[in-house]
Amino acid sequence: MTDFTATKAMFHLPEGVVYLDGNSLGPLPRAASHRMQQVIEDEWGEMLITGWNRAGWMEAPLRVGDRIGRLIGAEPGQVVMGDTLSIKVYQALAAALALRPDRRVILSDSGNFPSDLYMAEGLIRALGQGHELRVVAPGEVAAQITDEVAVLMLTEVDYRTGRLHDMAALTKAAHAAGALTVWDLAHSAGAVPVNLADAGADFAVGCTYKFLNGGPGAPAFIYVAPRHADAVQPALSGWLGHAAPFDFEPRYRAGAGVARMRVGTPPVLALAALDAALDVWEGVAMADLRARSQSLSERFISAVEAACPDLTLASPRDPECRGSQVSFRFAEGYAATQALIARGVIGDFRAPDIMRFGITPLYLDEGDIDRAAQTLAEILNGRIWDDPAYRTRAAVT
Amino acid sequence: MTDFTATKAMFHLPEGVVYLDGNSLGPLPRAASHRMQQVIEDEWGEMLITGWNRAGWMEAPLRVGDRIGRLIGAEPGQVVMGDTLSIKVYQALAAALALRPDRRVILSDSGNFPSDLYMAEGLIRALGQGHELRVVAPGEVAAQITDEVAVLMLTEVDYRTGRLHDMAALTKAAHAAGALTVWDLAHSAGAVPVNLADAGADFAVGCTYKFLNGGPGAPAFIYVAPRHADAVQPALSGWLGHAAPFDFEPRYRAGAGVARMRVGTPPVLALAALDAALDVWEGVAMADLRARSQSLSERFISAVEAACPDLTLASPRDPECRGSQVSFRFAEGYAATQALIARGVIGDFRAPDIMRFGITPLYLDEGDIDRAAQTLAEILNGRIWDDPAYRTRAAVT
Repeated sequence: MTDFTATKAMFHLPEGVVYLDGNSLGPLPRAASHRMQQVIEDEWGEMLITGWNRAGWMEAPLRVGDRIGRLIGAEPGQVVMGDTLSIKVYQALAAALALRPDRRVILSDSGNFPSDLYMAEGLIRALGQGHELRVVAPGEVAAQITDEVAVLMLTEVDYRTGRLHDMAALTKAAHAAGALTVWDLAHSAGAVPVNLADAGADFAVGCTYKFLNGGPGAPAFIYVAPRHADAVQPALSGWLGHAAPFDFEPRYRAGAGVARMRVGTPPVLALAALDAALDVWEGVAMADLRARSQSLSERFISAVEAACPDLTLASPRDPECRGSQVSFRFAEGYAATQALIARGVIGDFRAPDIMRFGITPLYLDEGDIDRAAQTLAEILNGRIWDDPAYRTRAAVT
Repeated sequence: MTDFTATKAMFHLPEGVVYLDGNSLGPLPRAASHRMQQVIEDEWGEMLITGWNRAGWMEAPLRVGDRIGRLIGAEPGQVVMGDTLSIKVYQALAAALALRPDRRVILSDSGNFPSDLYMAEGLIRALGQGHELRVVAPGEVAAQITDEVAVLMLTEVDYRTGRLHDMAALTKAAHAAGALTVWDLAHSAGAVPVNLADAGADFAVGCTYKFLNGGPGAPAFIYVAPRHADAVQPALSGWLGHAAPFDFEPRYRAGAGVARMRVGTPPVLALAALDAALDVWEGVAMADLRARSQSLSERFISAVEAACPDLTLASPRDPECRGSQVSFRFAEGYAATQALIARGVIGDFRAPDIMRFGITPLYLDEGDIDRAAQTLAEILNGRIWDDPAYRTRAAVT
């Protein structure tokens, strides 16, 4: 049984704060600060250039990738770290399209994160081969998987509503139609059980600064199914994906397996913070995490619905169809979120009317959930959101 | 007059080490460790998600880009940070090619860093329009700038020999032939005076972990000349290059100016270390740095040539034609470099026979240069490199 009191103690949380925005940026794992000081002072400071070998910097993207792999049902050697999620989407999509040269449709949905759609747009323009990005409603995806589709590109958990796609069923349907899949796990990795191997996923990508708590702008990851890993020709063919980077050959030769998805010099400092953050997961069973996430989410929904009749649940009511967040619709959601933050309950807002709350059992307990629901009720029922101080929009909340 | 005693005191250098590999990885600026602790504990730890606004994380890529801009002759708002140098090469080259749709040749040279050539290969394959990567000897570049050339893509300072291209003259020749230029400043920024505006450069890119001392895997930068900045359609069209990232629009709209070259979430922690490293430059005049770099280089070449007849200068003899490194050819260069490192003089080796020495006045003085030359002479003249302990090859030195 996972000890969630122990995991909570591994995080620094500011005094008096209930943090329900771990689906956007995870809080600081206490170990990250010390580990960063070590990598800066003992490694960079003392080893200088020799740190690439002596401190294992060069292999860190694969070593840390294996740690992520354990959380998403991948074997060692199938996940590598680097760049940002947007770059990894580009790499995965380019690789998948090249494996289906006779098809022209990328199928996605309107619940996908915009950057994934933007990167697809850019890739389509670069390729200049008349590919079409077909964006349908989330509920229409299954019906739209036709034999025109080259790649089904979806984010498993909707960043606004928390709606969870059935990865295994949709991957099976894609394969039956001759299509490949690219799964974005931004709101899945560390949030819900993921088993890429069992689902038969072809490519998967994700960020590590949300439920994996790697820090602001932490490096992204990419998974390539072993059946494709030696077949794909990288579009972003950088020297660290080369078979022999330090031979400095004039022509590109792709390295073996997922290592060919490396591009440039690895972000050593950021990887150190992420590596420390991943220590939290050592004693965590994903089934326990999922059960507790659902239990805390149900508790939050019940309390909010009982006390706040003006809010409408935007997330699926069935816990099995939700990721690890709960969203409500409220026309004055922006101001209400600001008022909540002013009272130490940090959630966030997504236009036009979504109030989002990340439910993260690693560091949230029943007391936090109850305080959040109670504070939300005070703001709604006291019309505190109507205070002009909370209605001025900033660029980011 | 720049106070180089003061700049040297701003770095941590291990006891007993003479560090001549700052052209590969700069040493630790003392301020970086404390600044990183601040960003981790006071910003990430205490501000959590609100750090994006309150701590200025979101604008950091432009703010830090402006600081780099001052070192390379760019105005504020023309440089932005992010990703790795390989990714920035891809962005710049894709943008430049799109501005010359009727031409098919990318001209580069064999002194370019391999990753730049690899990224061009990958882009050419993605575009599928029959572009040709034409790689000539460095001395042949000027003669090969014909009206077939869409883009002249060069690294200003050769990573092996330190040979310095004449950026202004080659850019002028490229423009006269109707071509655009992409300059890689990996070994220029912080090493030699660069004036992108005066040279008329179209695009420039660079890394920040060499002469700028930003730490292992520090973020890269990209410069776009203002005359192109609102014209280029980004190939890597990520959400943070969007005109309104937080409107989450379904379609991509490029942001204004160089900000459209942003892709994904900025690497906040790595940017903090780099930002601290850039403080060192506040009192440095680039002309002073160049004069001292040349003086220290001449001193090193004279001492080594006097004492080590087996070494052949691989760098241009004319200081005006060199960057801020000195290279020698020696058949047993690998072993000799290992023997040097074992004696606390850190240089590096590039196959097949180049021994490289970065000359970095920010933290090297005459005493360091003399000790390095003397140690090298001992190794050469005592045939210490012949010890089997120094002849076993590791992947990276």
